[in-house]
Amino acid sequence: MTAYDALMAHQRELAALEQVSGRLGWDQETMMPRGAAEQRGEEMAAMSGVLHARRTDPRIGDWLDAAEPADEVARAQLREVRRAFERTCRVPAGLAAEIARVTSIAQGQWAEARANEAPADFLPVLDRVLALRREEAQCLADGGDPYDALLDAYEPGATAATLDQMFGALRPRLVALRDRALGAARQPATLQGTFDPADQLEISRDLAAAFGYDFRRGRIDRAVHPFSSGSGDDVRITTRTVAHDPFNCFYSTIHEVGHATYEQNVDPALALSPLGRGVSMGVHESQSRIYENQLGRGAAFTGWLHGRMEGAFGDLGMDADGFYGAVNRLQKGYIRTEADEVQYNLHVLLRFDLERALIGGTLAVADMEEAWNARFLRDFGYAVDTPSNGFLQDVHWAVGLFGYFPTYTLGNVYAGCLYRALTAAVPQIDRSLASGDATPATDWLRDSLQRFGGQFPPRELIERATGQAPTEAPLLDYLDAKFAEIYGL
Amino acid sequence: MTAYDALMAHQRELAALEQVSGRLGWDQETMMPRGAAEQRGEEMAAMSGVLHARRTDPRIGDWLDAAEPADEVARAQLREVRRAFERTCRVPAGLAAEIARVTSIAQGQWAEARANEAPADFLPVLDRVLALRREEAQCLADGGDPYDALLDAYEPGATAATLDQMFGALRPRLVALRDRALGAARQPATLQGTFDPADQLEISRDLAAAFGYDFRRGRIDRAVHPFSSGSGDDVRITTRTVAHDPFNCFYSTIHEVGHATYEQNVDPALALSPLGRGVSMGVHESQSRIYENQLGRGAAFTGWLHGRMEGAFGDLGMDADGFYGAVNRLQKGYIRTEADEVQYNLHVLLRFDLERALIGGTLAVADMEEAWNARFLRDFGYAVDTPSNGFLQDVHWAVGLFGYFPTYTLGNVYAGCLYRALTAAVPQIDRSLASGDATPATDWLRDSLQRFGGQFPPRELIERATGQAPTEAPLLDYLDAKFAEIYGL
Repeated sequence: MTAYDALMAHQRELAALEQVSGRLGWDQETMMPRGAAEQRGEEMAAMSGVLHARRTDPRIGDWLDAAEPADEVARAQLREVRRAFERTCRVPAGLAAEIARVTSIAQGQWAEARANEAPADFLPVLDRVLALRREEAQCLADGGDPYDALLDAYEPGATAATLDQMFGALRPRLVALRDRALGAARQPATLQGTFDPADQLEISRDLAAAFGYDFRRGRIDRAVHPFSSGSGDDVRITTRTVAHDPFNCFYSTIHEVGHATYEQNVDPALALSPLGRGVSMGVHESQSRIYENQLGRGAAFTGWLHGRMEGAFGDLGMDADGFYGAVNRLQKGYIRTEADEVQYNLHVLLRFDLERALIGGTLAVADMEEAWNARFLRDFGYAVDTPSNGFLQDVHWAVGLFGYFPTYTLGNVYAGCLYRALTAAVPQIDRSLASGDATPATDWLRDSLQRFGGQFPPRELIERATGQAPTEAPLLDYLDAKFAEIYGL
Repeated sequence: MTAYDALMAHQRELAALEQVSGRLGWDQETMMPRGAAEQRGEEMAAMSGVLHARRTDPRIGDWLDAAEPADEVARAQLREVRRAFERTCRVPAGLAAEIARVTSIAQGQWAEARANEAPADFLPVLDRVLALRREEAQCLADGGDPYDALLDAYEPGATAATLDQMFGALRPRLVALRDRALGAARQPATLQGTFDPADQLEISRDLAAAFGYDFRRGRIDRAVHPFSSGSGDDVRITTRTVAHDPFNCFYSTIHEVGHATYEQNVDPALALSPLGRGVSMGVHESQSRIYENQLGRGAAFTGWLHGRMEGAFGDLGMDADGFYGAVNRLQKGYIRTEADEVQYNLHVLLRFDLERALIGGTLAVADMEEAWNARFLRDFGYAVDTPSNGFLQDVHWAVGLFGYFPTYTLGNVYAGCLYRALTAAVPQIDRSLASGDATPATDWLRDSLQRFGGQFPPRELIERATGQAPTEAPLLDYLDAKFAEIYGL
């Protein structure tokens, strides 16, 4: 067996074990009996130990030294293994274990502090999490920028400087668009009524099928938080139902189908290999977002959804145009995950700037709530009322996810680029969407992007799919046009 | 950290990983998308590799040499670790891997041969499985009896000679009782009609609760084959529904609840330790069988079930006495898993004798079908009609489970002993059972037996619980009395 083959066999087993661990996480959120939580913690910790040992196996270094790639794909496999191995090796085992231990505690304290609106109970442990992640960032940065070193885990090759420039261009135009829309004379109505959860779930299954989700290699269950889990031939999603807000269920489902089909559509030849998954968080989010927003919230598809809903629930009290407005309605709010297409990125930009300051050492945890609230007032025009509507709303920092937030907006930017290329390449997608079929669009995404898995770095992948370097312009132009029409601007 | 503590920490992680692997098996039978089967095979194989490496970790030997037990429980922990470690070390890694590989192939070939009634397609691979297991038995026996060495994996301390004596006493009395019952003038009626699966499942949840199943630490799902999976705080069961045969669902559920509550009721102080599970297959089966038969199929409980069913399904066309007869009705049949309380053990005894001859080398795989059919005719009085009703009916031998079958009948014998002791210790159990509550009985089983996990060897455990060495007499006396009454013998 060549060194390359030995390395790939090792990585294949590692990938299989990562699937096992992921399935355990899925089970925890969907099936696990309540009383099993503590035991499950030990099971997860034992699996983490197994995975860590595999990822730091010193033979990986030997194999990498000796391996001779036979082609471009093999070269990319080695690039990916080396990237992951070098990152893992740079962090001392004791530090990695301490981060795992402290973030696990912090997650519980965060949940309690949020429920009790008691930020002071959370700040000490957050301070510890931040200190540990800053230490890790120093190890990873190897003399470079510590924040970039964290960001690189989620978005290989991205830098805060590039993102800052892109986000800087987004912010004023998003604020201006939001202000014009909320101040417009014409305001869309909201959907009224309550909608049977069983019917919502039935429609959400139709939506998943409409967007190309392969039920033979996946399943949909209910969970508190919608998510997608697994890769290859076993990619499961969850959704939730809120009786008075069926869009929550429907657009969560389409969003997760975007993540899930990306995983399902990776070339089977790459399955369980280092390149066998979506390439980055930003590209992943570009898929979930283009499915959810550009395709799912477009007038063509909401026209079909309007009919499907009236079939299930009777008269909705609005025609297809009104329904399109209701789906896309902008409104004031504190919560990122509930924000509309325009304001969502403003929530992300706030977090990006704050976490860079935290990692850079120019903002202390003790001053964070004040900084958050000041920035929120500036960007949104009204004050945060409670900590759970402010800096306590997201779990990310509690579990150490610094450098993750910007990938949400980067995903939206990529989605803008991809949508422009898609509409040029497949001009008749609206005709299919209007009949409840998104697959001409999702087939193009599969063939242009999803099938490559991790073969090309994120920016190169977007360039290959769109023929251009990614910029924020297509997203902004799309948003301006869409909301100008809805609000009569 | 002492050697004992280090060993226990290692075993605890091993037990946690075994839980993960078991949950993966549960998922495969209940939740897994159809298209994920091949990928799942790789995931399971990777987990097997992880578990095998842990079980053969050479440090276990060092720790065992150095460990000093502080008390009786610690001594029992070490006994159990040594037992498992010595067994594992005696089998060369290559042989263990080959057995895993070949039995995996054999299972598929068995299923196909059974479906096609084509035994010739299965015999070559069965021959290979048998040869490998005979080789393994030689390694394990260390000069002793090879069959005993295999049996010891499922029933520590049991020997074929002891079982043979016990089973020899059972056989003529079971045959005689069966012949008298089937020849009796009075024959119970059968239940007629079809019964909504959803209602069956609702009743089966009541049954699980009636027998003390802790839903907070478990769940019930549907699967092709009923089973119990997991230990400690996450013990799940499955059941199935057959529209015209609700007893299939109900008694499968009670049976699996017997297995599951045994696991749930082990002393939490033993959780995830080498003693933290049921001690043997025979004792496990004693629990499932006493729940299902002595308690669940007794007149007191079927009286309650009769009322519960009439509440759900309307008039059943029989009174409580007739219903009791219908639940316990003897009938001709080829299939072990469908057999009644009296004839079930005859099916097992046939397999026990045949597999001893196979392992002992006095029966060749090529002659097995003939031997099976001749013995079946002798014990049951009519000829096997098709291979799937004969020696192809069970998966056990295909997957290498030689030495497992006798634990089914041993479990019934133990159940007989326990039931005699239980009725003496808790004289009023029938009053509770008649009101749909088995917990005074199951509480006694928990306190007398289940809570000890693996602390005492099987026979000693039964002796402690019953005050007597186990014999077949209580089971036979119970069956004679029960069926004499039902059939008016």
